[in-house]
Amino acid sequence: MQFIESIQNQRVKHWKKLLTKKEREKSQQFMVEGFHLVEEAMMAGVVEDIILGDGVEPPSFRNTTRINFYKVTKEVIKEISETETTQGIFAVCKMQEQSIDPKTFQSLLLIDGIQDPGNLGTIVRTADAAGIRAIVLGDGTTDLYNPKTIRATQGSLFHLPIVKANIIGLIPELKKAGITILGTALQNAKKFTDVEKPTKVALIVGNEGKGVSKELLTMTDQNVFIPIYGKAESLNVGIAAGILMYHFRK
Amino acid sequence: MQFIESIQNQRVKHWKKLLTKKEREKSQQFMVEGFHLVEEAMMAGVVEDIILGDGVEPPSFRNTTRINFYKVTKEVIKEISETETTQGIFAVCKMQEQSIDPKTFQSLLLIDGIQDPGNLGTIVRTADAAGIRAIVLGDGTTDLYNPKTIRATQGSLFHLPIVKANIIGLIPELKKAGITILGTALQNAKKFTDVEKPTKVALIVGNEGKGVSKELLTMTDQNVFIPIYGKAESLNVGIAAGILMYHFRK
Repeated sequence: MQFIESIQNQRVKHWKKLLTKKEREKSQQFMVEGFHLVEEAMMAGVVEDIILGDGVEPPSFRNTTRINFYKVTKEVIKEISETETTQGIFAVCKMQEQSIDPKTFQSLLLIDGIQDPGNLGTIVRTADAAGIRAIVLGDGTTDLYNPKTIRATQGSLFHLPIVKANIIGLIPELKKAGITILGTALQNAKKFTDVEKPTKVALIVGNEGKGVSKELLTMTDQNVFIPIYGKAESLNVGIAAGILMYHFRK
Repeated sequence: MQFIESIQNQRVKHWKKLLTKKEREKSQQFMVEGFHLVEEAMMAGVVEDIILGDGVEPPSFRNTTRINFYKVTKEVIKEISETETTQGIFAVCKMQEQSIDPKTFQSLLLIDGIQDPGNLGTIVRTADAAGIRAIVLGDGTTDLYNPKTIRATQGSLFHLPIVKANIIGLIPELKKAGITILGTALQNAKKFTDVEKPTKVALIVGNEGKGVSKELLTMTDQNVFIPIYGKAESLNVGIAAGILMYHFRK
């Protein structure tokens, strides 16, 4: 275990930079914070470094060969933490090159341009709960490895394959594989409860303001909407995604 | 229209204090920010003052008798705003003493101790969308008039009656009125899709960490759970509430 006390240390500077998308993409690493997420990352086998505040007891991990442990001062913790009440435990994780093939899954969630990190994280968590088998992050979707997104997933980002892809390019492939594509839209759409549940399904959810892109909506097998019975103008996209994922699961 | 330029002005000090629960309860007023919410508050007829940043054009409201208009400087706007990118329009609203009788409604949402303002606001918005007729805020639930909660409701707080009450005291009354009480729980509960949809229903959702209180769960007609099919430990309470409200609506 190495002890680091200076925030001028090169490693500390790198960790701090992992709060930025640029550094994450360059190093293909991201940071998780807190006991729960560090344990989830350990179980997923993606951890490279574990960083512990002075006095913080690490959980008893099973396999820690090839993992570097660092003990650091309060000042260092402050420098690298994004939360107000830190637990003083962090893991630097390696991004997984998930060369998965979306068309091999029975249920998929396709995310077309979600912008809010909290929304994306909650949607990933809900997809995991609903038993969705894989998630595709379309172009223009906010970064999965943003600390806020990771926190909102509550670890679910480690539970199912999540890949980046161009959704427009992907749809013909999914269709060929017998997967029914459901878009979400307010116009030219069927009430979701009136649509037969497909055997294999890919559900598209869209941007908070603009919804699913028009081009995508013309490529789907069916577009669905959730009725608004009261006076609200719309549903939060995370809530809408949750209702639809639970409804269309088999 | 009165012009106020000093943040030392007594009125400005009061507006700023409306960001605190204490001042809101004392004055029975709360503040909404942004064009959409101000318009919703106007339609609800609860506005007392409208505050406009210099150069901000008010929408053309129908009935503005008995409403005070104030034009203020950027410094004042900064002082009273809670958002990073303010639209420079605010309304001071009067809390409504809603002496409604919960047992007269066909569908109710009972909120037992939700703590996060964003969760509460989103749940109110979703309840509105799902056509729930009234909401009861149980003891220990976070303040409806917190600026974050109000923002997350997107105006739905003006669309349906929302009252504070002791839920334990309320349940016998609701039962007598023929309303079926559904609790949400992880144990001793039925899968929500296996429960018959009641004609009149009151759904209870609970605190983010502890769920619905044990005492309440013993008083319900039926407790329900949403199955977790993947590896997530739980659902966000807002998502869970959304799935159940849409499922149990008639």
